[in-house]
Amino acid sequence: MTLDNGRKLLAIPGPSVVPDRVLNAMHQPSPNIYYGPLKEMIEGMIPDLKQLAGTTGDVVFYITNGHGTWEAALSNTVAAGEKVLVLGTGPFALGWGAVAQTLGIEIEVIDFGKQSSVDIAQVETRLLADKNNDIKAILVVQTDTSTSVRNDISALGQAIRATGHPALYMVDCMASLGTEPHFMDEWLVDVMVSGCQKGLMVPAGMGFVFLNNRAHAARREMDRVSYYWDWAPRVAPEMLYQRFAGTPPTHHLMGLREALDMILIEEGLENVWTRHRVFAQAIWAAVDSWGSAGRMWLNIKEPDKRSFAVTSITTSHFDGGKIRDWCENVAGVTLGIGLGMADAKSPEFENYFRIGHMGHMNVPMILGTLGTIDAALKALDIPHGAGALEAANHVIATASR
Amino acid sequence: MTLDNGRKLLAIPGPSVVPDRVLNAMHQPSPNIYYGPLKEMIEGMIPDLKQLAGTTGDVVFYITNGHGTWEAALSNTVAAGEKVLVLGTGPFALGWGAVAQTLGIEIEVIDFGKQSSVDIAQVETRLLADKNNDIKAILVVQTDTSTSVRNDISALGQAIRATGHPALYMVDCMASLGTEPHFMDEWLVDVMVSGCQKGLMVPAGMGFVFLNNRAHAARREMDRVSYYWDWAPRVAPEMLYQRFAGTPPTHHLMGLREALDMILIEEGLENVWTRHRVFAQAIWAAVDSWGSAGRMWLNIKEPDKRSFAVTSITTSHFDGGKIRDWCENVAGVTLGIGLGMADAKSPEFENYFRIGHMGHMNVPMILGTLGTIDAALKALDIPHGAGALEAANHVIATASR
Amino acid sequence: MTLDNGRKLLAIPGPSVVPDRVLNAMHQPSPNIYYGPLKEMIEGMIPDLKQLAGTTGDVVFYITNGHGTWEAALSNTVAAGEKVLVLGTGPFALGWGAVAQTLGIEIEVIDFGKQSSVDIAQVETRLLADKNNDIKAILVVQTDTSTSVRNDISALGQAIRATGHPALYMVDCMASLGTEPHFMDEWLVDVMVSGCQKGLMVPAGMGFVFLNNRAHAARREMDRVSYYWDWAPRVAPEMLYQRFAGTPPTHHLMGLREALDMILIEEGLENVWTRHRVFAQAIWAAVDSWGSAGRMWLNIKEPDKRSFAVTSITTSHFDGGKIRDWCENVAGVTLGIGLGMADAKSPEFENYFRIGHMGHMNVPMILGTLGTIDAALKALDIPHGAGALEAANHVIATASR
Amino acid sequence: MTLDNGRKLLAIPGPSVVPDRVLNAMHQPSPNIYYGPLKEMIEGMIPDLKQLAGTTGDVVFYITNGHGTWEAALSNTVAAGEKVLVLGTGPFALGWGAVAQTLGIEIEVIDFGKQSSVDIAQVETRLLADKNNDIKAILVVQTDTSTSVRNDISALGQAIRATGHPALYMVDCMASLGTEPHFMDEWLVDVMVSGCQKGLMVPAGMGFVFLNNRAHAARREMDRVSYYWDWAPRVAPEMLYQRFAGTPPTHHLMGLREALDMILIEEGLENVWTRHRVFAQAIWAAVDSWGSAGRMWLNIKEPDKRSFAVTSITTSHFDGGKIRDWCENVAGVTLGIGLGMADAKSPEFENYFRIGHMGHMNVPMILGTLGTIDAALKALDIPHGAGALEAANHVIATASR
Repeated sequence: MTLDNGRKLLAIPGPSVVPDRVLNAMHQPSPNIYYGPLKEMIEGMIPDLKQLAGTTGDVVFYITNGHGTWEAALSNTVAAGEKVLVLGTGPFALGWGAVAQTLGIEIEVIDFGKQSSVDIAQVETRLLADKNNDIKAILVVQTDTSTSVRNDISALGQAIRATGHPALYMVDCMASLGTEPHFMDEWLVDVMVSGCQKGLMVPAGMGFVFLNNRAHAARREMDRVSYYWDWAPRVAPEMLYQRFAGTPPTHHLMGLREALDMILIEEGLENVWTRHRVFAQAIWAAVDSWGSAGRMWLNIKEPDKRSFAVTSITTSHFDGGKIRDWCENVAGVTLGIGLGMADAKSPEFENYFRIGHMGHMNVPMILGTLGTIDAALKALDIPHGAGALEAANHVIATASR
Repeated sequence: MTLDNGRKLLAIPGPSVVPDRVLNAMHQPSPNIYYGPLKEMIEGMIPDLKQLAGTTGDVVFYITNGHGTWEAALSNTVAAGEKVLVLGTGPFALGWGAVAQTLGIEIEVIDFGKQSSVDIAQVETRLLADKNNDIKAILVVQTDTSTSVRNDISALGQAIRATGHPALYMVDCMASLGTEPHFMDEWLVDVMVSGCQKGLMVPAGMGFVFLNNRAHAARREMDRVSYYWDWAPRVAPEMLYQRFAGTPPTHHLMGLREALDMILIEEGLENVWTRHRVFAQAIWAAVDSWGSAGRMWLNIKEPDKRSFAVTSITTSHFDGGKIRDWCENVAGVTLGIGLGMADAKSPEFENYFRIGHMGHMNVPMILGTLGTIDAALKALDIPHGAGALEAANHVIATASR
Repeated sequence: MTLDNGRKLLAIPGPSVVPDRVLNAMHQPSPNIYYGPLKEMIEGMIPDLKQLAGTTGDVVFYITNGHGTWEAALSNTVAAGEKVLVLGTGPFALGWGAVAQTLGIEIEVIDFGKQSSVDIAQVETRLLADKNNDIKAILVVQTDTSTSVRNDISALGQAIRATGHPALYMVDCMASLGTEPHFMDEWLVDVMVSGCQKGLMVPAGMGFVFLNNRAHAARREMDRVSYYWDWAPRVAPEMLYQRFAGTPPTHHLMGLREALDMILIEEGLENVWTRHRVFAQAIWAAVDSWGSAGRMWLNIKEPDKRSFAVTSITTSHFDGGKIRDWCENVAGVTLGIGLGMADAKSPEFENYFRIGHMGHMNVPMILGTLGTIDAALKALDIPHGAGALEAANHVIATASR
Repeated sequence: MTLDNGRKLLAIPGPSVVPDRVLNAMHQPSPNIYYGPLKEMIEGMIPDLKQLAGTTGDVVFYITNGHGTWEAALSNTVAAGEKVLVLGTGPFALGWGAVAQTLGIEIEVIDFGKQSSVDIAQVETRLLADKNNDIKAILVVQTDTSTSVRNDISALGQAIRATGHPALYMVDCMASLGTEPHFMDEWLVDVMVSGCQKGLMVPAGMGFVFLNNRAHAARREMDRVSYYWDWAPRVAPEMLYQRFAGTPPTHHLMGLREALDMILIEEGLENVWTRHRVFAQAIWAAVDSWGSAGRMWLNIKEPDKRSFAVTSITTSHFDGGKIRDWCENVAGVTLGIGLGMADAKSPEFENYFRIGHMGHMNVPMILGTLGTIDAALKALDIPHGAGALEAANHVIATASR
């Protein structure tokens, strides 16, 4: 039988749960796109987005998804025939590299595998060896949404600049913006890309590129940049449509305004980060506890290298797929598939699942997700350690004091 | 700190969680109220409501809340100066009696307290003693939303009729309709009242009275019935406005149509009842487990007398209030107060809380609620038995097989 | 063919068009009904509603429609066997009288027909003749939604009180509250009833009774008042549920809050009234112009006796029904039927139609309605005077300067 | 004073009015993006979109606006250094050419001005002279949203192919898809681009490229195509994310499904086109009538070259700007600015305005718009011919018979 006649709980690592308030903010007639309230609203969001990113640089809106922002960032800064250094810690940085190749950019990959963060020393070594400064940019993710590893963007930034190498430092914060600390300027990031559908709690369909003066300088070196991706007119538009290279994404913008109010004004960015950290730690505690029976592991072993936004879990016996099916079909919780952890058509693929815990999440949503996984383990007779839910609750109880 | 930036989970015993689909169905322009789709939609809902109640009798809509349906039922059937027998198993049947008094009706109460269901033998004895048939109606609740007791409406109906006494058998199903079995005709109920905001998952503001031919006969005996409550023109209207004694509650009706589809067509009434039973049993298992430390009890001791829609819990040390506060303010779960269990201004009032588990509920919502209570117990250092959440999950896992 | 794939325009005299903002404000999860934001919101609306009515007295919310507020007002003030004086200027005051009869109240009707307002002199004469003060209350409408007549509530109030007769002065403002000036205290009104679904722009399902100390005194004289209608506990509740005699109409209240903001804070009540007056005058100009061909008339001849909220129109040749059908089925405008102007089953009924122009209305909605009627006249080859739309526009243009 | 407290009527040439149903369809929780209902829904929309375009070819979704689809179409078919022929009939085809230049494509423009459609003979001549087939593609709009001219895409297609020249025939149907007939295959169009925010009635943020086998062949000739714009994996995806080069625009897709149902199933595409034609003709009649006083003209003189979706109007005395201001600020109708008709910073710019009449439009919306413009003319004392509204109504009345 199904026990699901309630609100489906989406616990995939993006798109995340959209708050009712954001949906309501989007439930509006189409506005005038030439002047009036929409224009003012957009201009008012720019400082808010910059605050979110920790930058005094610029922010550009694109009607696109995350992959599109990768293309945008590269299109403005690296020409065909030039080279970028890709720091692989899962499929997402590698994917960015693949996009670069379709632009005619040469890529050089250092692959740290699916369970490790970037080894900064290797990067330093490589940069110091690049005497001709052939490497125009370094591509890395803060959080890999697939492996759930988190890289130390601050330390990497310090190390890169310490080498004296001029390469642009470009960071993907798709899953980390609005879920864990990011200080673009302080961390010496030149270009940062993100989307609206994870920490920002807006339906998919809008992306952002943040950039500093070094990035502007790289843009000026380009022979040409395609109209849609060119950030130059978007940064300093004379008319509203130039900010979007055409018609603006009216309803996404209305939703984003509401989400930014929730994050920056009502909850406060520090508290948002802390909340994500506590929930992540609660989830890790539960998984460790279940895993004591030897059938389930956190993909990232070192706690300080784990994302606060998504947790990637490995099982044996193809339990991952069974757990996901039970949660989705019987109970009403949608967990993430192990995207990028194995070939999606191989049986091994069913050994992975992910819990998305980003954005609009509170205690009952986290505990409802964990409780449902626990019920699945019992319903499916999958051996698991006892006390997982109480272990999670000890984390939450302690944090709440 | 607060850990609540997700969707608030309302776990009070009504109003219950309104499904997004029902809210969407209500997000409509005002319709024509004289003819056209609204009129057809309303007529189409009548057989559905009757199916829900298990009756071939009539159903009447009132724009009112639950208390209003009490007044409606009495206004059509019992005249000032006549007498009704009130079977108290908590504040709600007693409240119905209090309404009767404001209509000039004499009441006689048999009070079974706050932890027991109706003792059928006592009712038989009283009816058999009423040689002159002074008792015109018997008022009882199927589920008392305060105490969470459930009366055996079928057995009581058989017993009443077996005495040969002609009193109308009037049952309040405010919390039970759409959450646990009710077969009005088979159980020999003459008048049944309910509302839209619990098992029917629609925002508060509409009530229903179901009635059979014995009730119609009682109506015909009345000298007069006030315009608003009179069910005669509402049952057989010539124009739509007569069904509502004026303007219909357009948006509630649109919401109700969607909710009835969810219950009757998509999930199926049998499954709805089973789902509620499983969730109730899971909650009982958790409370029993927590309670092994001696600080918390289910109000109703006998499982077969407990509601499937709401669970009333007693604590010592005023823990109830503390738990409610933590869940609401820190975590995002709203639990019910112990309405009617003690004087709301007395310190003892803080020893009670209730979990509403009716309507639009699935596994993560139930387990999110229980998990949050468990976290509260830990955060507040309230002694409690271990394993409560896993006990609940064993119930759910077993049921799902 | 149909030319309707746009937003249906509802131009019936209630329910009126619900603003998108009000629908959005109602698109919310169910709230906690015991304490917190809902409770505070409700308390904050009471001074706003009183400002709307022009009173320092009290206001009571009922989950009901307009007919229910008639019953509420009478149930608190006039006992069975007592008498009220009904001043008929269309079906609505007469309907209030019919409700009184179902409460056992004796009614005496002075009927001024369907095209005239109250003749104050006749009322004075009758009151002066009532030496024993048998008349307990006088029932009258400010605007009759059927005939579209408007009574001079101020002058009538002065006249009643000048006779020295103590009868309560009870006024129905169903269509006039929030559409044209009403100053309850200054006009010496004792009890005023209205609903949420016309000038207040909220879906049908909630009504209001406003009352002063004379009305309170009448309540105290009553032997008993039924629980649901009794306004005494509702005026001074100890707990929130007492204000509603049970569960509050959560979503209607959220919608009303938004509507009151629109009226009182954003547009301003004076401007709301002026806007309604201008639109009414524009409509009258168009109808007069069409009517120069002898097939159509405004029901109320004297402009100063016409409502600003609704306009009732008479046709010959059963044109009214044909116009309504064309507007509804071909064009997308729903006009009001001639409710109460003739037997709904008689052919004559098709000679009437009404334009509702209350609430959420702006220039394109008014001119879209008039333009569509003009198109209907042409499509149906109904003789009509030329220049009607331009006549309406002269009114609007002049007012806008 | 303002007379606007109703629903703002947006009569700009896109974004158009979004139906309430479409907004409701978008008011949904985020769905699972890997499998399940969303995936099935998307696959089901593809035949519907192809039916809309009149093609058996392929359709590709892009998260982008109209300008982005221009870039998409070119990126897949024309390499840097190659040449396209731009047929200018207003700023939009010229804009497409400007996008081509940013891709390194050489453009050759034949500019037919702002009041004429394409002169097919000139195109034939040019193609016949292109002996080396240097021209890789021909760029033209069906409707220029600025000038409101409509080109004869069928005749132009026949003529192009009759020359034997192999250039791809690429047509922008931004404003014409879903508003006037388009038969891509029959008209020999190779690549057609459009967006969701005009005839398709969905908020801005999604675009479409339709393509046939000749276009596929051109793609295969390209050395490389950037990841985001490459249509090859999007046409035949193995996993859902490939169709969107990443996360799909979940909510736009849900809205589009509803809009397609309205167009294809409920109203029928033929009727949609006829409705747009009738409304356009009604608007032309009104403008001609107003213009008899010599202060206002339709931009396109020949009726058979006028768009059915948008009407561009020229005034003298800077009346255009005054009319727009009055309609927007006093009345509640937003008209389009004369985008592209003059320098936006010059005084002459205020001589232009546009009426958007595409998508979710019915009789009261069209007549409300025209009525409001008529009121503006009167309020502003702008000389204008009489009878404009009745002239429009004669068109509508005649069409409705």
